[in-house]
Amino acid sequence: MIQRMRIGPGEKPRIAARDPRDDLGLRDKARAHARLEELKARIEVLQQRLYAEARHSVLLVLQGLDASGKDGVVRSVFAGVNPQGCRVASFKAPTSTELAHDYLWRVHAVLPARGEIGIFNRSHYEDVVAVRMLELAPERVWRRRPGHIVAWERMLADEGTSIVKVFLNVSKDEQRRRLQERVDDPEKRWKFRRDDLAVRARFDEYLAAYEDVIEQTSSEHAPWHVVPADRNWVKATAVAGLLVDALERVDPKLPEPESGIEGLRIE
Amino acid sequence: MIQRMRIGPGEKPRIAARDPRDDLGLRDKARAHARLEELKARIEVLQQRLYAEARHSVLLVLQGLDASGKDGVVRSVFAGVNPQGCRVASFKAPTSTELAHDYLWRVHAVLPARGEIGIFNRSHYEDVVAVRMLELAPERVWRRRPGHIVAWERMLADEGTSIVKVFLNVSKDEQRRRLQERVDDPEKRWKFRRDDLAVRARFDEYLAAYEDVIEQTSSEHAPWHVVPADRNWVKATAVAGLLVDALERVDPKLPEPESGIEGLRIE
Repeated sequence: MIQRMRIGPGEKPRIAARDPRDDLGLRDKARAHARLEELKARIEVLQQRLYAEARHSVLLVLQGLDASGKDGVVRSVFAGVNPQGCRVASFKAPTSTELAHDYLWRVHAVLPARGEIGIFNRSHYEDVVAVRMLELAPERVWRRRPGHIVAWERMLADEGTSIVKVFLNVSKDEQRRRLQERVDDPEKRWKFRRDDLAVRARFDEYLAAYEDVIEQTSSEHAPWHVVPADRNWVKATAVAGLLVDALERVDPKLPEPESGIEGLRIE
Repeated sequence: MIQRMRIGPGEKPRIAARDPRDDLGLRDKARAHARLEELKARIEVLQQRLYAEARHSVLLVLQGLDASGKDGVVRSVFAGVNPQGCRVASFKAPTSTELAHDYLWRVHAVLPARGEIGIFNRSHYEDVVAVRMLELAPERVWRRRPGHIVAWERMLADEGTSIVKVFLNVSKDEQRRRLQERVDDPEKRWKFRRDDLAVRARFDEYLAAYEDVIEQTSSEHAPWHVVPADRNWVKATAVAGLLVDALERVDPKLPEPESGIEGLRIE
């Protein structure tokens, strides 16, 4: 399952050629849900050990176009995991204080500590893709950023952070359906902004911008994965599987107790 | 249920006279679990609105002696709640950078943002109680802190943070049983430290120090609650109930959508 999603270093992701409805061999919703529950139970156990050991951290980076389901993945995969030791950071348009620093400053500040799982709902990749698409900086500025990012992620990996990067690949048609649902549902309507339509109108250009940055920044130490995102049950199970894979590579161990504790009677 | 736990402004908490096995009228474990599930479903809905509205925040402060079950409460009440918009902060012994600032500095930095629920596993109250018990600062220093804290929490409440403070009241006998379990269980043994015994030996003194600080800092805008903590099902359900009560007082509303969105067709 994981190999089908992983983009090797220097490999062209060919996002547009990938099927957003691919079921990754999960076959049906019931099977996928059963698998998701197993994976979540495994995350729970591994997260406790990660937290207890407090030597490594895991960072999950979630990117995707509007309505690709980033919020939904956070909820499906992490609701049920102990929130102690789990840290979600969402990145919106930078504040004036954040803009007064380099683009990695605000991101660096909220990285998971040793023992924690960090989830980035959007990330420093917006500082390449959104900046490019909205012309927030000249081309020479965003062109050099993938190079910085590869080096910075290398440092993080060397210092004990396992990085898993996910691009949620939603189709243009499924995006239309989900945006329409937001408009039609009074409970969801507040989430919809007219600006979303301007972004949607450039769907293919956004995809091409992701194509570039994913190719430039997928590395052995911080690989990208293109996850088919038209079906929620595929997406959630796939991301949970990637997280379990990362945690198993870390293989955290419970720390040794103080010596001579065994057999102690508490008065 | 809530009135039985709440300490009014200026009221003596009389912790030692309270029964750590009180069931708060929940009667049995099955009933309490059913009630907990209802409360968690309610938290989920209210948290989504809190997050969407992004005007108010809720801060839950958890204090209690060793093995009173602070970690367990975080897990029981918040696993299942969307971690996006939920932020747990655990306070350990301050680092040298933290000690280079006033004691509220590190606490202030990790308060929940508008729209978030923050959970403090230990808090600035350690800077009164632990500092007093371990003689980390002279008496005149910790004696004046409750006054600062009341004023600081007043400011937070005025600016939109609902504060709920919980003291988990475990009995000395139940603490013994839980510490013994840590020693006996190879999976939990790493959590046990010999230092825990030195703290346990002064159980009544710690309780008296909490008695003082709770009396001095329970206020209308940031009330303390003494939660019976010998039975996990009582404790979790009680804390979930306090949180729902706080969220219902905030009464967050979904924001208005942009005008003219209704009926829009997405192309």
